[in-house]
Amino acid sequence: MPETHPFDDAIALHWQFESGHRGETSPAYANMVGPFGGITAAQTLNAVLQHPQCQGEPVALTVNFCAAVADGAFHIIARPVRTNRSTQHWIVETIQNGECVIAATVFTALRRDTWHAPEHAKPEVPSPADVPLRGGRPRVEWINRYEMRFIEGAIPAHWDGSGATASLSRLWMRDQPARGLDYPALAAMADVFFPRIWRRRATLVPVGTVSLTVYFHADRDLLVTTGTGYVLGQAQAQAFRKGYFDQTAQLWNEAGDLLATSHQVVYFRE
Amino acid sequence: MPETHPFDDAIALHWQFESGHRGETSPAYANMVGPFGGITAAQTLNAVLQHPQCQGEPVALTVNFCAAVADGAFHIIARPVRTNRSTQHWIVETIQNGECVIAATVFTALRRDTWHAPEHAKPEVPSPADVPLRGGRPRVEWINRYEMRFIEGAIPAHWDGSGATASLSRLWMRDQPARGLDYPALAAMADVFFPRIWRRRATLVPVGTVSLTVYFHADRDLLVTTGTGYVLGQAQAQAFRKGYFDQTAQLWNEAGDLLATSHQVVYFRE
Repeated sequence: MPETHPFDDAIALHWQFESGHRGETSPAYANMVGPFGGITAAQTLNAVLQHPQCQGEPVALTVNFCAAVADGAFHIIARPVRTNRSTQHWIVETIQNGECVIAATVFTALRRDTWHAPEHAKPEVPSPADVPLRGGRPRVEWINRYEMRFIEGAIPAHWDGSGATASLSRLWMRDQPARGLDYPALAAMADVFFPRIWRRRATLVPVGTVSLTVYFHADRDLLVTTGTGYVLGQAQAQAFRKGYFDQTAQLWNEAGDLLATSHQVVYFRE
Repeated sequence: MPETHPFDDAIALHWQFESGHRGETSPAYANMVGPFGGITAAQTLNAVLQHPQCQGEPVALTVNFCAAVADGAFHIIARPVRTNRSTQHWIVETIQNGECVIAATVFTALRRDTWHAPEHAKPEVPSPADVPLRGGRPRVEWINRYEMRFIEGAIPAHWDGSGATASLSRLWMRDQPARGLDYPALAAMADVFFPRIWRRRATLVPVGTVSLTVYFHADRDLLVTTGTGYVLGQAQAQAFRKGYFDQTAQLWNEAGDLLATSHQVVYFRE
């Protein structure tokens, strides 16, 4: 019997009608406290995609992390608040122990052929085979679920406060083991980047994403074409101020198609 | 008796307890169809800020435009789904004629002093006094509510399909008449940029924002310092594909502080 992929296990949901979808956190994607935010984003999106009333493909996803998700079971209530002819708007709430831990919105649409053009071009970088695998032992489990090849801006090797003058990171990544790209996987990859403040300061300050947005530019055909190929991820902050910073991200496939763009705002202490 | 500012009139809300806030669209901020999206974003945020249970200042706002807002009255139901010690998460729904037209999330927080650093620096541009006022008669009313001084990438003078190879626009702006900057005004300014596809194609294709996110980097003190000064806005798309494109934006004050960063995904036809 073939084993299922750990990502599929992690985002699996059970439809329970009025109580929405029941899910569980996965030890394979554990972070320092609770689960990796990217897997939570993927589960949130999956609750919409698996919903009996869902129409179309995701275009926009915003996930607000209201409180730390505790290890164990949760319920996701996804509600289509507006269904138009070819678009649909969703409000999603994840409940754990009777309290809201995730508040999200999702926009889905039937895509049509139109004029198209790239604008943010994939940077010139060495090909994945020419970039070494991330070394060292990760301090959290979810990192082992990704093959990461940092081109620049890897997580600091020494937490000596030296830091960098810019927070840019670029890496080739894919699921480990490889897995055909789909929307939940892309949502998770949008959150793979370690917090930009660690890069700027080389200091392990406490952090937590409070809101994450992903815009999906890829339609299903492009995801299928990308398949198990590598994804080039790039992330950079714009400002750090009074306990919060933002980070923008782009995700391209090897052919140079921009699959998704993403933004998040992150809390930090000190 | 002093007249109130049209912006204050437009975002005014009446608290009606269980039915939330009652508001009305403002002819002063009319767009081609229905209101300017920025004023809708400002009203949505204001419903949280005016809510009796609101704590702290806004850090993140995501507004999903579920359907065209019709001219006239609406109700905004803002619900604090999670209140932590120093942060609060909100889900907001705007109802018109019994249907959801806006689905939003807001994150508010008590800001504290921390390490701080800029990263996306204000570009070198001429000062506002050296940049001419936008000329021509605007085709929609809300444009008259802003003083706009385009440094580059003004709205095409000729809709001749010539277009531009990049969608970047930069302008100095402020409310017209001038008004001290606050969070609702900043939220509206994040949506001042005309759709990037018009710049790329110099063709008036039908468009509509489907989701807008604003991250507020400025605390109240910085807003007060900025006052009625000019705001430098910059916007650029990252990809146009199958009926949707995204656009990222930055807003700085004259002193070079990054006040807010923003992102939106926009529907287009053809």
